[in-house]
Amino acid sequence: MVFVGFGFLMVFLQRYGFSSVGFTFLLAAFALQWSTLVQGFLHSFDSGHIHVGMESMINADFCAGAVLISFGAVLGKTGPAQLLLMALLEVVLFGINEFVLLNLLGVRDAGGSMTIHTFGAYFGLVLSRVLYRPQLEKSRHRQGSVYHSDLFAMIGTIFLWIFWPSFNSALTALGAGQHRTALNTYYSLAASTLGTFALSALVGEDGRLDMVHIQNAALAGGVVVGTSSEMMLTPFGALAAGFLAGTVSTLGYKFFTPILELKFKVQDTCGVHNLHGMPGVLGALLGVLVAGLATHEAYGDGLESVFPLIAEGQRSATSQAVHQLFGLFVTLLFASVGGALGGLLLKLPFLDSPPDSQCYEDQVHWEVPGEHEDKAQRPLRMEEADTQA
Amino acid sequence: MVFVGFGFLMVFLQRYGFSSVGFTFLLAAFALQWSTLVQGFLHSFDSGHIHVGMESMINADFCAGAVLISFGAVLGKTGPAQLLLMALLEVVLFGINEFVLLNLLGVRDAGGSMTIHTFGAYFGLVLSRVLYRPQLEKSRHRQGSVYHSDLFAMIGTIFLWIFWPSFNSALTALGAGQHRTALNTYYSLAASTLGTFALSALVGEDGRLDMVHIQNAALAGGVVVGTSSEMMLTPFGALAAGFLAGTVSTLGYKFFTPILELKFKVQDTCGVHNLHGMPGVLGALLGVLVAGLATHEAYGDGLESVFPLIAEGQRSATSQAVHQLFGLFVTLLFASVGGALGGLLLKLPFLDSPPDSQCYEDQVHWEVPGEHEDKAQRPLRMEEADTQA
Amino acid sequence: MVFVGFGFLMVFLQRYGFSSVGFTFLLAAFALQWSTLVQGFLHSFDSGHIHVGMESMINADFCAGAVLISFGAVLGKTGPAQLLLMALLEVVLFGINEFVLLNLLGVRDAGGSMTIHTFGAYFGLVLSRVLYRPQLEKSRHRQGSVYHSDLFAMIGTIFLWIFWPSFNSALTALGAGQHRTALNTYYSLAASTLGTFALSALVGEDGRLDMVHIQNAALAGGVVVGTSSEMMLTPFGALAAGFLAGTVSTLGYKFFTPILELKFKVQDTCGVHNLHGMPGVLGALLGVLVAGLATHEAYGDGLESVFPLIAEGQRSATSQAVHQLFGLFVTLLFASVGGALGGLLLKLPFLDSPPDSQCYEDQVHWEVPGEHEDKAQRPLRMEEADTQA
Repeated sequence: MVFVGFGFLMVFLQRYGFSSVGFTFLLAAFALQWSTLVQGFLHSFDSGHIHVGMESMINADFCAGAVLISFGAVLGKTGPAQLLLMALLEVVLFGINEFVLLNLLGVRDAGGSMTIHTFGAYFGLVLSRVLYRPQLEKSRHRQGSVYHSDLFAMIGTIFLWIFWPSFNSALTALGAGQHRTALNTYYSLAASTLGTFALSALVGEDGRLDMVHIQNAALAGGVVVGTSSEMMLTPFGALAAGFLAGTVSTLGYKFFTPILELKFKVQDTCGVHNLHGMPGVLGALLGVLVAGLATHEAYGDGLESVFPLIAEGQRSATSQAVHQLFGLFVTLLFASVGGALGGLLLKLPFLDSPPDSQCYEDQVHWEVPGEHEDKAQRPLRMEEADTQA
Repeated sequence: MVFVGFGFLMVFLQRYGFSSVGFTFLLAAFALQWSTLVQGFLHSFDSGHIHVGMESMINADFCAGAVLISFGAVLGKTGPAQLLLMALLEVVLFGINEFVLLNLLGVRDAGGSMTIHTFGAYFGLVLSRVLYRPQLEKSRHRQGSVYHSDLFAMIGTIFLWIFWPSFNSALTALGAGQHRTALNTYYSLAASTLGTFALSALVGEDGRLDMVHIQNAALAGGVVVGTSSEMMLTPFGALAAGFLAGTVSTLGYKFFTPILELKFKVQDTCGVHNLHGMPGVLGALLGVLVAGLATHEAYGDGLESVFPLIAEGQRSATSQAVHQLFGLFVTLLFASVGGALGGLLLKLPFLDSPPDSQCYEDQVHWEVPGEHEDKAQRPLRMEEADTQA
Repeated sequence: MVFVGFGFLMVFLQRYGFSSVGFTFLLAAFALQWSTLVQGFLHSFDSGHIHVGMESMINADFCAGAVLISFGAVLGKTGPAQLLLMALLEVVLFGINEFVLLNLLGVRDAGGSMTIHTFGAYFGLVLSRVLYRPQLEKSRHRQGSVYHSDLFAMIGTIFLWIFWPSFNSALTALGAGQHRTALNTYYSLAASTLGTFALSALVGEDGRLDMVHIQNAALAGGVVVGTSSEMMLTPFGALAAGFLAGTVSTLGYKFFTPILELKFKVQDTCGVHNLHGMPGVLGALLGVLVAGLATHEAYGDGLESVFPLIAEGQRSATSQAVHQLFGLFVTLLFASVGGALGGLLLKLPFLDSPPDSQCYEDQVHWEVPGEHEDKAQRPLRMEEADTQA
């Protein structure tokens, strides 16, 4: 899911399709292995051995998700060596942040509004701030989509949409809790899709829709219930949260992304601030609210699996809410410090960053064939081989 | 599944890809929520609350399927406001029709040959008849595919193919019944694929295949066993049914769709009559036949789950067959009356229908980027933002 | 999985997308039905009836996989009648080879390194040798990719990647064995992805990556653990095997494919020798090694399900290893003789093979629309119909 979804979601750039899909593939494969080691060390280290299993696979998948979110912020402006270094650092910080939140603070975050989306987005945004390119104007003409690249990107959107309910519920308790998580996610996504269409037409010229909004903001509903979907959010709550997320995210693409670049010098290629940053923080705050309202009556026997510390009497609902809020601050802190550190590391000169005039361009990193069959004048592979022989 | 499959299946039009995928997405998200409410009211309304769960999600998914089938008939000739109004009406009628068939008449229709395919197709076709555009010739040059749009459409075909066995068996009884449903669907699909290839080459110029047939008619095998796949159809029966459906559907695309437009004034963009209409009716009739042949010996203990009314002795197999046939007539009645009503509603002037010369055109509804990187001269989003600032 | 993955993986050719996806679809639908009959006859023939069920579906799917691998070797150089004849023969030989290996020799091959990959690859390669076209140069200008066809091919790659763990573990014993198989496959794939990226940059001009390597060699990790993934390979072993496979496969694409054509007169369109041939043989040898090291201590109670003959004391681990090695030779023998026989059959003149100058060209087999909307001057279907009426 992580591969298809994120990979194709980023294909929208006209001359960066190979890199978007290819580097997503590379980063995911690297992050999966590295985070299995890191998380194994933190969670299940036992007399020199690491326990692996389905849960560690899913955990590693979540971590790869955060890395790919950060990739979205710097897409087109970084080379593969830089990206691998970023992943090397981010996976470790992701593991520590998650360990602090889930194991030390007892925070609940099944779908990762905080640990995945907020962390990944702000890590990437701060990193992108440090790598700010004042001369990016030179590559601006490639920073748009073409007709069929937008269609490829919709493959990513639709995959993420379909698999998001399973994603949010992958690590929740089996049974009623898992069903509730999937249903809440599903209602939230449906509402954010409607909200996005409505708002995109409202803010568009002549009421026309913008594909960027549909591709991205329609998914904000999945992000916003990442923390609270396993809780008693109620279908109505999920619908309201999703609608709000879709709206905020669409407005973000329309009005906030340009401001982010002009005033805050953050160049956010995929708009991860709109899809993961703001909805992630909103989702964390929603989690604070819903956790604070938890009662024994509402959850019944399910309280044990959703809020074990409340069920055991170690914490009140209010105390859980405060811990959730504190978890958000810890996440923002880790992400910002980590992103700044990462940005400085990625400035190391031997890492082969593409020049300002070659951003969003596949040819820096790939052997690229022509666009049309009649133009394909470049020597083909087999012919090269013939000549060599 | 509904999203990917139907969305991309409709992408074949050269200048309508954004709308095909985007409006599929919008309609599905809207229909899912609205049908959860409608079906909840009809099926599980209980002292002011609606029970939601996995079954209501699958039911809502089925309903969204019917809406998207109708969308296929009017594709390219309706705006988003019209489509939402259509969905508003169709979801209600779908719910009532399904309630009458399954709950009042005791009809069996696990994969929805009647409730989904026949209903969705004839609703859309009658609606398209009411909205007949004599001047559609003006947009005819856009009503064809280009090379890569046909490849995108094949993504849809292959997804529907793969997930159809699970689709038909989603709501059947667990265990032997579910396995039988999946296997029957699978054999029927394989046979309809072979039948389609054979016939497409047979009726094509110089024996050449037509992508439209492969994209659509290959799926008719899944439609035709929608009613009977959970029954004792036998693998041979499934193969024969699938082959027949693929053949009929291919012939429909080749010969019947033009007649439908010229003589009956029904403009059927995606050929839903060939993929859903005729195979759906065939499937319903096949269900009549197989139900009429049901015996206690053939089903054993499984009779209870497939035909509970026969197992309890309330009905004979013949009586069940008559009820099945009556269910088909009810469905056709609801679909026709509903479609006519819908067509009249959609003619309301403030709904912003695209003019005859702007059908099958994305630019009416979307901000569309250029087709190629070198031609992308339209101001890009970020640059617009810069200028505003 | 077989459909999406293999179909789109072969879409990379610039003018052969319809045929790649369409014939994959046709071959798979045919092979599924035919192999259900053949395997049913060999495995579960019982007083005139064949038992079908989920296992026979998965088995048929595996067989279709082998047929599609062979298709990759002859892609673009064969017509549909030739391909169906090839499948007719290959399915029978696949069934016999599998029966000899699994039932007579007691070889273990859960993910089919031998039965699927080695068999399919060498069958196709020998067949391609027999059909050698010295004048293929005439179609060489179409034997390359274009930008968006490479992106389509990545859809195939990513799907195969994601579903490979389930593919290898589909027929293993439930529980611990299945988890082990999925995890081993997953680690091997991740390692082969990293290995492929590293090597592709190393052998590429100016360190640039080649999309062909990423599309294919990244998957070699799934092939190489096909035999041993259900055994006690250990995560480290899986990582090492995957890395090796990715490396060997990339080197094969770069250096060995041209030699194969020039010296051995084997024209291997998709490079199946690199993705399935060499990694398949490597995987079989890895299976020999791991089987030879099997002990009661390492497997515990699981030995019964992985190596029943060792658990029952009928064989030593060394004897099992010898049997595994013998299985590889039997597979190579069946594949070579079968491929040679198939090649001779496919030379029959009435099978309508495309001429040397029309290879890799969709228009021989399909009605092909124009590439761009402005160029779409060919009469459209509906207009043809109008004229006829």
